Amino acid sequence: MNRDHDIIVAPATAPGGAIAVVRTSGEGALALCDRIFRGRRPLRDAEGYTVHYGRILDGERIIDDVLVTVFRAPHSYTGEESAEISCHGSAYIVSEILRLLIAAGARTADPGEFTIRAYLAGKLDLSQAEAVADLIASSSQAAHALASTQMRGGYSEALEALRDELLRLTSLLELELDFSEEEVEFADRTQLRDIMTRIDAEIERLRESFSLGNALKEGVAVAIVGAPNAGKSTLLNRLLNEERAMVSEIAGTTRDVIEECANIGGVLFRFLDTAGIRTTDDRLERMGIERTMQSISRARIVVLLTDATTLAPTGMPSAPDFALRPEQTLLHVVNKLDLRPDLDLPADTIGLSARSGSGLDTLRRALRNAVDTAALYHGDVTVSNTRHYEALTAAHEALTNALRGLATHLPTDLLSEEIRQVIRRLGDITGRGAILPDEVLGNIFSKFCVGK
Amino acid sequence: MNRDHDIIVAPATAPGGAIAVVRTSGEGALALCDRIFRGRRPLRDAEGYTVHYGRILDGERIIDDVLVTVFRAPHSYTGEESAEISCHGSAYIVSEILRLLIAAGARTADPGEFTIRAYLAGKLDLSQAEAVADLIASSSQAAHALASTQMRGGYSEALEALRDELLRLTSLLELELDFSEEEVEFADRTQLRDIMTRIDAEIERLRESFSLGNALKEGVAVAIVGAPNAGKSTLLNRLLNEERAMVSEIAGTTRDVIEECANIGGVLFRFLDTAGIRTTDDRLERMGIERTMQSISRARIVVLLTDATTLAPTGMPSAPDFALRPEQTLLHVVNKLDLRPDLDLPADTIGLSARSGSGLDTLRRALRNAVDTAALYHGDVTVSNTRHYEALTAAHEALTNALRGLATHLPTDLLSEEIRQVIRRLGDITGRGAILPDEVLGNIFSKFCVGK
Repeated sequence: MNRDHDIIVAPATAPGGAIAVVRTSGEGALALCDRIFRGRRPLRDAEGYTVHYGRILDGERIIDDVLVTVFRAPHSYTGEESAEISCHGSAYIVSEILRLLIAAGARTADPGEFTIRAYLAGKLDLSQAEAVADLIASSSQAAHALASTQMRGGYSEALEALRDELLRLTSLLELELDFSEEEVEFADRTQLRDIMTRIDAEIERLRESFSLGNALKEGVAVAIVGAPNAGKSTLLNRLLNEERAMVSEIAGTTRDVIEECANIGGVLFRFLDTAGIRTTDDRLERMGIERTMQSISRARIVVLLTDATTLAPTGMPSAPDFALRPEQTLLHVVNKLDLRPDLDLPADTIGLSARSGSGLDTLRRALRNAVDTAALYHGDVTVSNTRHYEALTAAHEALTNALRGLATHLPTDLLSEEIRQVIRRLGDITGRGAILPDEVLGNIFSKFCVGK
Repeated sequence: MNRDHDIIVAPATAPGGAIAVVRTSGEGALALCDRIFRGRRPLRDAEGYTVHYGRILDGERIIDDVLVTVFRAPHSYTGEESAEISCHGSAYIVSEILRLLIAAGARTADPGEFTIRAYLAGKLDLSQAEAVADLIASSSQAAHALASTQMRGGYSEALEALRDELLRLTSLLELELDFSEEEVEFADRTQLRDIMTRIDAEIERLRESFSLGNALKEGVAVAIVGAPNAGKSTLLNRLLNEERAMVSEIAGTTRDVIEECANIGGVLFRFLDTAGIRTTDDRLERMGIERTMQSISRARIVVLLTDATTLAPTGMPSAPDFALRPEQTLLHVVNKLDLRPDLDLPADTIGLSARSGSGLDTLRRALRNAVDTAALYHGDVTVSNTRHYEALTAAHEALTNALRGLATHLPTDLLSEEIRQVIRRLGDITGRGAILPDEVLGNIFSKFCVGK
């Protein structure tokens, strides 16, 4: 049984809106819809990219007045004959339409199954298909730019170019095998090493971009640390609440989504909860501090908050009593500045009052500047997908082996196999040049929502 | 400034789906979309009921690949030129599209404003427009049938017929005023009284249907009462959990919506929380029992639960120690039947085991049978809207006055004015024959979601 030829159906919109859309795809989808739809004329006679007003009926019972958009193969998202039923946004109506379509012969789509079909039809490669899920989840300008670039293929193109170079070299190598008696070298070994080194450098660049790419996608981790009572919670609430209000004003998004995140200048920041740091014998408190230290090590940016009322007039906050890695950014912030107008803060210290809100914009600018997103907006490829990062790492390891093989004059057939490994790992990302088994596809698309 | 001519825009779908729809309406809406849309050709040149693939751009920055459906006046929901932009379901993309359309000259729609426009364009009368909101909120077959009948005008037609009869009589009455010197009677007073009495009976029937209509819309209230430990919570969880699982399996609806409600045989039942009833001196417990009594008085159905292990072998549960109104239904239910296989229950008593689930279907059938919804599915008009009920009550009061005026030989001009009052109250429901002020409209539509 080939499930790929079934007519699939799923709601494509979330419950709770004014309208809802039910999506169905597969050969015969229009005739199937006709069994429950009564309009001016049958949908199966309609042209693609047209919209039809009519009623969904359960026998004689009217379920809803709807608009149906008709798509003809291959001009649809999946590449198949498809229909989108736009109905009133009631959970009951949506479930009735699904029930009727399933009774008429469709089956419920698996998560991401519409996109799997688009991939199988060659409308998207795998990394583009994965970008669709990221695009839907994107809640900031930076995450949107990441997913958008990847969906438009910028990502795949860079990888394809690398793969093509390797393929060319491997065919030259493999040509030698046909003449193995004659000890010829079609592939110049020096050139081969140069090119593989260049490719490895490019793969390393992509792998390095993952740290930023992943942070931009999941939210750049920020730890706000400081002594008890320095005003960490007030500052956090300030940063979160104002953004919360803004986000919900624009899009009516749910609270769950933003939770402890704030969108600052188009970048999503994720604030990590921390307990106050001080020397203590209390066991519970020490556990809290240990958690704080873990937050610090996970953070990309650490905001060290000092209470202005505890400072000498020179305003010099004390140095942090924890170590940071070179790639981490430390921001010195002095709170409650309104209570100490006499303070003369050093230039690299940000003064603010979390209570009144003054100085908050300076902190926001500093947070935003600590994340360099220039590459994102200049067409550079940034890796944000964990699966891709793992495939790149595997490709890097295979390349290391191949380079070692080259240095140790590995026999041509073994060397060729090492390079084929690299090509396969790169193919895993775009899904090209390798037939991915159903389990792998299922795993990739299981994170999709139903209806996409 | 007339806001009714603005181009309005709003998201029409809830955040969180695979796709999102942004809806815009008003003269010039297509040209406005063209300012941010790049497709094969401009939308303003497109025919109605066609779909167009293209990109939403912010300058040169690509926001998303979208499908735009074009509607030409008057063939749209609002009756105006409209467009629906179907994009990837990301909160960020939706907010960007809204921002760009607003920057191009649209404004955010008020809640229900698309439907207000449909009403102002004469596409729907007021009771039909209100039914749209009910339809979207409907989560059971019965609530759906209520809203669906009302939206299709069954409701308005019944009221319009009544209003027309009254209008005819009033014009006859008012004709007499022109001949007031001559003491003629164009309107036969006996006929007038007969017709008004018939109308009042019809209004009374509609008003009486409100009790059921409102219960079906909000959920039929059921109080489960009984001695402590009779198994009320177990039974409630059984009824709720099974239905919960079912509902979420079908439509992916949120938990909040169903909370303490269960859909049984197409009717939504709302279970009221009650404390166990027994004689006690404990003040807190007495407060709980008082609340139980309030729940009983609010309930349409009372389930009196008895613990089987406390019964004599005849299995006769004791009579309730609270009084019920005639329209309330009492169901005798005996729980923990699995522990008492010897019991011989009376015919009108339902035996079950909440723990094992046996007998639960019998209880479900009994609950469902206690609600007579036959009228719903035979085209009868059922009032479910509080505003309509109030207008009908006002109409009934005006009719009572008019009938009294007729009996006391009120002068024709005063009598005519009394009848005009009745006509106005009926007009309040459909919005016909009366220009409703903006505040009233705003109040009615404020309960709508944005985008409808």
